[in-house]
Amino acid sequence: MPNQDEIFTWVHTAVEAGANVAFALSGLLAGIRKQLDVVGICVVMGLAAFGGGTLRDVLLDRRPFFWVDHPGWLWVLIGTAVAAIYLLRTTHYEFTERAIQWPDALGLGLFTASGTQLALAAGTPALPAVLMGVISATFGGILRDVVCNEIPTALRDRRPYAVCAFVGGWVYVFAVRFEVPPATGFLLAAGSATGLRAAALLSGWSLPAGRTSAPRD
Amino acid sequence: MPNQDEIFTWVHTAVEAGANVAFALSGLLAGIRKQLDVVGICVVMGLAAFGGGTLRDVLLDRRPFFWVDHPGWLWVLIGTAVAAIYLLRTTHYEFTERAIQWPDALGLGLFTASGTQLALAAGTPALPAVLMGVISATFGGILRDVVCNEIPTALRDRRPYAVCAFVGGWVYVFAVRFEVPPATGFLLAAGSATGLRAAALLSGWSLPAGRTSAPRD
Amino acid sequence: MPNQDEIFTWVHTAVEAGANVAFALSGLLAGIRKQLDVVGICVVMGLAAFGGGTLRDVLLDRRPFFWVDHPGWLWVLIGTAVAAIYLLRTTHYEFTERAIQWPDALGLGLFTASGTQLALAAGTPALPAVLMGVISATFGGILRDVVCNEIPTALRDRRPYAVCAFVGGWVYVFAVRFEVPPATGFLLAAGSATGLRAAALLSGWSLPAGRTSAPRD
Repeated sequence: MPNQDEIFTWVHTAVEAGANVAFALSGLLAGIRKQLDVVGICVVMGLAAFGGGTLRDVLLDRRPFFWVDHPGWLWVLIGTAVAAIYLLRTTHYEFTERAIQWPDALGLGLFTASGTQLALAAGTPALPAVLMGVISATFGGILRDVVCNEIPTALRDRRPYAVCAFVGGWVYVFAVRFEVPPATGFLLAAGSATGLRAAALLSGWSLPAGRTSAPRD
Repeated sequence: MPNQDEIFTWVHTAVEAGANVAFALSGLLAGIRKQLDVVGICVVMGLAAFGGGTLRDVLLDRRPFFWVDHPGWLWVLIGTAVAAIYLLRTTHYEFTERAIQWPDALGLGLFTASGTQLALAAGTPALPAVLMGVISATFGGILRDVVCNEIPTALRDRRPYAVCAFVGGWVYVFAVRFEVPPATGFLLAAGSATGLRAAALLSGWSLPAGRTSAPRD
Repeated sequence: MPNQDEIFTWVHTAVEAGANVAFALSGLLAGIRKQLDVVGICVVMGLAAFGGGTLRDVLLDRRPFFWVDHPGWLWVLIGTAVAAIYLLRTTHYEFTERAIQWPDALGLGLFTASGTQLALAAGTPALPAVLMGVISATFGGILRDVVCNEIPTALRDRRPYAVCAFVGGWVYVFAVRFEVPPATGFLLAAGSATGLRAAALLSGWSLPAGRTSAPRD
């Protein structure tokens, strides 16, 4: 019978795989919508899946990157892009967009918790460590949209995303401060970010924005 | 009575604070103009204020970043974004845009001098060291505009900005070469970049650009 | 009489110079087309010429960058930008665009081979090492287009470019695995990437893309 640590590791890997797939699929949809070619679709999928974690690692000066250590995922990504070009029909789009919301929310929690954990372990103070978690979870999508020549969705759609990561990051910081066992703190942080995101999706809660009557110069 | 070093440090900190606030406010105005939500406004403010220095530090392989060492500024930034959403009225815009030109010019000088200084101290040759100063002073604004899906103002408005930083950086390099005392060299460099920018703003001097009859593909 | 190594080094330097010039000229044309000022043209030329190699070096944590070690090239770049603003006429454009295709194809091969080589030497596994070669060869153009507020050409024009680099990178990996002498492996890799690109340009071969009937949201 597997012990608790093994189960935790197994669940972590499974959630991470699902999250990477969800992030990559968001890149796939964006790339097809922008009529990119197969190279463009691969690049945008790669940015969406690995961009946030890679930027966090550059900022924390960590090596090797996830995709250098686990090149198998890059083959999965290339294979998915090629398959999608031949198989994906327009009618699949809306279904895919809705379906990826849930693994994406799991990924949000997982990247937040692991980003904050890595930053704290590297000696980063609390608020910048939380921001490293937020960057891990959100900058993949931001880079995807910048390369697709759009204002990033995460910065303008008023649906809480980075905010959920921000709260989850603080849950991790306080868990560490109150000496909660690491695995429990990780689950609490990931769970609160994911839970908040799910609640936001279900309730339609929206963030404030600037006055919409602003001059558009 | 404080000695000269203490006064220099105090002035440096005050100018740096003013410059960061000016850069962040330029991000705030851009974010509101693009109708970003509160998260987007924070991200764009953060890029405008800290993006140039962070990129310089990544290129020079320096850690920790300014905002990791001084997380208090991040709270100021988040507070300003939230306050602005509720308080900023359209009529404040033009006033703010004009008002931030002057602390922004101070920031231009300060970031140029400190970026060039850090690069030379890390053993960078003269021209790349000057470019590190220019990058510190300008890439915050460039990243702000890229994320807002605009061609960066600094690259197309023909008003001298990076050019002033370029001149200021060379002033620092020559001050070091002629063994001017460090604080004096710093002030000369920052002063000449800021002074040139102020002169350009007041005189309307404009840079050459390519032929405007260029084909637009 | 020079020995083989000296000839190899000399050819390498000459091809690298030609490639950097071709990449910079692509930035010059993009900058003029977007009506940037002289600063903008320099920035876009610099990104096109040095952006890919610099990003590769940041990812591999290598210092110093090429342009820090060889600042002379930066002067060439600045001089070219200034000269182009006064000398370039609209009728030169189409000629320049066609003329730079060939040194650009040489640069593609060279950057692919050297990027893959550097990554393997740093202990990177095969696929990520090949991607480092692809990044060296392509991200200069991608950064150029992002800053010019365009969807990058390399991601959407369906003309093989990154794909040629990808094949060339694998040629290098297999040359190393089968213990081909380093200089021969380098030439085989660079030659196959350049040759494929030339064949693609001459034959009009095009990559698959997503369904063009995709909803444009």
